[in-house]
Amino acid sequence: MLAPDMVQLDMTGPFEVLARVPGWSVSLVAATLDPVRTDRGLRIVPDTTRESAAVADLLVVPGGAGVDSAMLDTAWIDFVRRQADSAEHVFGICTGSLLLGAAGLLQGRRAGGHWQARDLLTRFGAIPSDARVTVDGKYYTSGGVTSGIDVALRVVADLEGEVAARKIQLAIEYDPHPPFPGGTPSTSPAEVVRAVQADARARRAQREDMVAQAAERLRQP
Amino acid sequence: MLAPDMVQLDMTGPFEVLARVPGWSVSLVAATLDPVRTDRGLRIVPDTTRESAAVADLLVVPGGAGVDSAMLDTAWIDFVRRQADSAEHVFGICTGSLLLGAAGLLQGRRAGGHWQARDLLTRFGAIPSDARVTVDGKYYTSGGVTSGIDVALRVVADLEGEVAARKIQLAIEYDPHPPFPGGTPSTSPAEVVRAVQADARARRAQREDMVAQAAERLRQP
Repeated sequence: MLAPDMVQLDMTGPFEVLARVPGWSVSLVAATLDPVRTDRGLRIVPDTTRESAAVADLLVVPGGAGVDSAMLDTAWIDFVRRQADSAEHVFGICTGSLLLGAAGLLQGRRAGGHWQARDLLTRFGAIPSDARVTVDGKYYTSGGVTSGIDVALRVVADLEGEVAARKIQLAIEYDPHPPFPGGTPSTSPAEVVRAVQADARARRAQREDMVAQAAERLRQP
Repeated sequence: MLAPDMVQLDMTGPFEVLARVPGWSVSLVAATLDPVRTDRGLRIVPDTTRESAAVADLLVVPGGAGVDSAMLDTAWIDFVRRQADSAEHVFGICTGSLLLGAAGLLQGRRAGGHWQARDLLTRFGAIPSDARVTVDGKYYTSGGVTSGIDVALRVVADLEGEVAARKIQLAIEYDPHPPFPGGTPSTSPAEVVRAVQADARARRAQREDMVAQAAERLRQP
């Protein structure tokens, strides 16, 4: 799915993996057919709308501020519930797992999410996981942004076999060497963690508020 | 730059990093303002055209089949030469380094590229590098697809300091755990390497032909 102000790499990372599986096709679903402006300005053209979207085998829900707003949008909640109900596998990338939670799909399940947001999953009855890839039944959830690539390779391995996944991993030369150790709060210097948290303070407060509202709606629909 | 049939993650990976640097802005340049269809169907809306693009501090050249075609397109060659001339830093991601080579920018320089194409850099007088990130003067070149994320973090560290790069690395939770060892020919099982090479045989032949033509033009402009 594509929502305004989503994080584009939450979707484009998994897209690159999933679209390379022989026989699979990826369809980008949005509210309308107009280009969707993601949070840092990249604009992506949807393939179809929520109303016209075919029933998918695999639903991918990215994260970001726009996906927080979708928690309070019944058109998105209905779409996610309907697609997740018939999908064989459901992805929540980064804070996308919050939308799955808001749709009532993660109750009693283990689920991951961006390290700055995953604690909020408890508000939807989920059990937060710190793992980069968390699988609970048909729900595949990930940590922040870039972990969508890892979770996509994992689902390809589970559905199409290890050789299929390894071929894609080699084709996209996914042998990452981040320039620094880090990438998680526990492996980053304390000053870096504090700086990222400070930058995101307003965003976090807004997200807490939206999660609280979405959780209330889930209790009293 | 955006070219039809490029590999979208070559651009969207670095985009996610570069667009997060305070004070930096990213502009997507294409031949026209129409959405650009990338090789697996994702459509991206350009911000500007080659003619209207501002002089950039940093030029990012992604790879893929469409960028091979750009090697034989004087409008792209002229654009890349002009922008590279004034840019402080130039990125070639994946097979994007071939376009830099075709523009005559890598003569005598060390440069990386996708493992299935980097040997062709010799045709443009460059010295192929197997490293995931290769820096030679202002030219930052990378291995295949996903390595664009690593090279983007590296340039942020070089220009804005290590803390700025580590903040972005943590914000996008870039602590990758590919599901399998691999991602390079030397770390993947031989059957996987052979399968990927077999799938790409026609593409490779086409690319060799285009590189030969582009190299000929470079010798006799």
